[in-house]
Amino acid sequence: MGRIITLLTDFGTADGYVGEMKGVILSAIPDAVIVDISHALAPQDVDAARLTVARVWRKFPRGTIHVVVVDPGVGTERIALAVEVDGRLLVGPDNGVLSPALISPGARTVALAIPPDAAPTFHGRDVFAPAAAALARGRSVDSMGQPYAGAIIRRTPEPRRVESGHIAGEVILIDRFGNAVTNLVGRRDMIVEVGGLELPISRTYADGEPGQPLALVGSAGLIEIAVRDGSAAADLQLSRGTRILTRHAFDTVRTVSIR
Amino acid sequence: MGRIITLLTDFGTADGYVGEMKGVILSAIPDAVIVDISHALAPQDVDAARLTVARVWRKFPRGTIHVVVVDPGVGTERIALAVEVDGRLLVGPDNGVLSPALISPGARTVALAIPPDAAPTFHGRDVFAPAAAALARGRSVDSMGQPYAGAIIRRTPEPRRVESGHIAGEVILIDRFGNAVTNLVGRRDMIVEVGGLELPISRTYADGEPGQPLALVGSAGLIEIAVRDGSAAADLQLSRGTRILTRHAFDTVRTVSIR
Amino acid sequence: MGRIITLLTDFGTADGYVGEMKGVILSAIPDAVIVDISHALAPQDVDAARLTVARVWRKFPRGTIHVVVVDPGVGTERIALAVEVDGRLLVGPDNGVLSPALISPGARTVALAIPPDAAPTFHGRDVFAPAAAALARGRSVDSMGQPYAGAIIRRTPEPRRVESGHIAGEVILIDRFGNAVTNLVGRRDMIVEVGGLELPISRTYADGEPGQPLALVGSAGLIEIAVRDGSAAADLQLSRGTRILTRHAFDTVRTVSIR
Repeated sequence: MGRIITLLTDFGTADGYVGEMKGVILSAIPDAVIVDISHALAPQDVDAARLTVARVWRKFPRGTIHVVVVDPGVGTERIALAVEVDGRLLVGPDNGVLSPALISPGARTVALAIPPDAAPTFHGRDVFAPAAAALARGRSVDSMGQPYAGAIIRRTPEPRRVESGHIAGEVILIDRFGNAVTNLVGRRDMIVEVGGLELPISRTYADGEPGQPLALVGSAGLIEIAVRDGSAAADLQLSRGTRILTRHAFDTVRTVSIR
Repeated sequence: MGRIITLLTDFGTADGYVGEMKGVILSAIPDAVIVDISHALAPQDVDAARLTVARVWRKFPRGTIHVVVVDPGVGTERIALAVEVDGRLLVGPDNGVLSPALISPGARTVALAIPPDAAPTFHGRDVFAPAAAALARGRSVDSMGQPYAGAIIRRTPEPRRVESGHIAGEVILIDRFGNAVTNLVGRRDMIVEVGGLELPISRTYADGEPGQPLALVGSAGLIEIAVRDGSAAADLQLSRGTRILTRHAFDTVRTVSIR
Repeated sequence: MGRIITLLTDFGTADGYVGEMKGVILSAIPDAVIVDISHALAPQDVDAARLTVARVWRKFPRGTIHVVVVDPGVGTERIALAVEVDGRLLVGPDNGVLSPALISPGARTVALAIPPDAAPTFHGRDVFAPAAAALARGRSVDSMGQPYAGAIIRRTPEPRRVESGHIAGEVILIDRFGNAVTNLVGRRDMIVEVGGLELPISRTYADGEPGQPLALVGSAGLIEIAVRDGSAAADLQLSRGTRILTRHAFDTVRTVSIR
């Protein structure tokens, strides 16, 4: 059984870019097990890639190699990274997409050498896929380049306490269902304030009536705003960066608009 | 060679939910062969999931495990199901998505135990993926939960004879090409009446002129309305539930509007 | 380790058509390694399929079987093809999608027999998937049908020299990023003229300022028009067929409109 290599890109599939990457990998190591995470990330959405990496990278077994290519700076002086941590390996551009692994204790990071004949417009095919294949064939991360300490780290913004006594967070992601995921770590005794509404924490997306907004603790532990059988993003006009306030259920501060 | 596990969801791929499920499965059983059926079902479209299950579940070899997660009731009291029939295994929520297997002779159905630490918002990751992995590792369906006789069955509505002598059916699905698939079992001597048109049964999508509507027997044996090089749904304003009438070619009933 | 079988279609995934094809293949040859190239090609876009085939078919290792189904003429008299060249095998309809392989030196092409019970609306499931499985099980192309010399070849149009002394090419593809790929083979000393602009050849998508148009040599060696952090197709109103002029950097011909 071959090594697992996952792919996460913003390439879509129709143009064949992902197909080329798969061909390069399988030509180098025919028994690799290629797993598509997604190719449907919004073009050049580095933060979406980072959040998806955060969700998935450690869910795969040790030995897995994650290839992450959302890379607006391809071909420039930006560094190409490989990192090994907690038994998993990741390769991708140095723009923050690999942050969840880079900040994990014990991460070993190298700057990959760029082959001189790599197309400056497609490092997915010419740098990252070959690097993943080399790692899958047993090359060590340390042998792939020089240690690199300057990797760019992007972080989800931290919630902070505001004058009213609330905790102010923000929407960090709208998912496919229109749920607005926030940067607020969920607790069952919170009240979430959004668009003039005060929402207690529900348990499931099906609590309440159809069309009714609700707040709940999502599967990554973060507060989400949802609308039963609807889209919270559309119905409540939420988007990335929209401010969300919370207070504990026993607090009595007045509702304030978050927009 | 590992067991085949197929995935059919409405999750899209960009948010990483499917990636998490794949990671959970491969961590439990690294040689599983994961096959994507689709993650592009319309959000919460239980009937689309059911129709896709109907098309595919028996096409895979015996031993295949199908994971179907379109699950608006996730985390509520709705039951989580595992079913074994005709050598295939299926897991998914008790909302009708598994109906094509549940109604097959000899189906054995159990109510899966929900792990106490399962996120009430994501049973795909915390209930169904682990159940599939356990089945792939050889656990029997019977050992996974109590027998369950009350599973929800959803069925495609039956066509019926109407006063004019026609058989009245309806559109049950619009496919990616804009073809309108009906619940009418196709016969070559039918005339299909739709939007004031009388359409004999064509053999292929390329019969007739570009832009011309046609009826034909689709690859599941059901009557479809298509437009050559176009979209029947858009051009003829067809959608799920649109009534479609048929008569045998030797009938002479007058055309009636179907809308 | 099984044979690699790639799939490239315009079926989307939601309707289950691709799922059926995968089931047919795995039922015939359970250890096949199925690799999705794309199912997101625009419906019936034969040229997009051809260009994707051109990018990927030779990137996969010898022994790979490529299944290409963009097939507006399914069920008509159009021939079903299998071709072997350079150690790779391809199956698909005779409408030009396989041209990149068909025109390669040494290609051996046969007309596949159509099974009498094949649905005339779905040769992907009933002709091409079974043919791929048979090839994967070791059947020779020559045993699959009669040699066929009349296969339809579609070619990317050739650029040509126009009166002004320019080379006139055209946009052949808009990719997911809105980049406009042309039929002009790139050279670093070119000037590209588009929409009244004169663009020298940049090295990367990140050259210049955000929102600024640029021309560069893409990863297949062809000139592309891009907009940094934007969509060239949208911003410059480029689409397939838009004329693009080039001249060498030392030329001084005046800018002309390309539309």
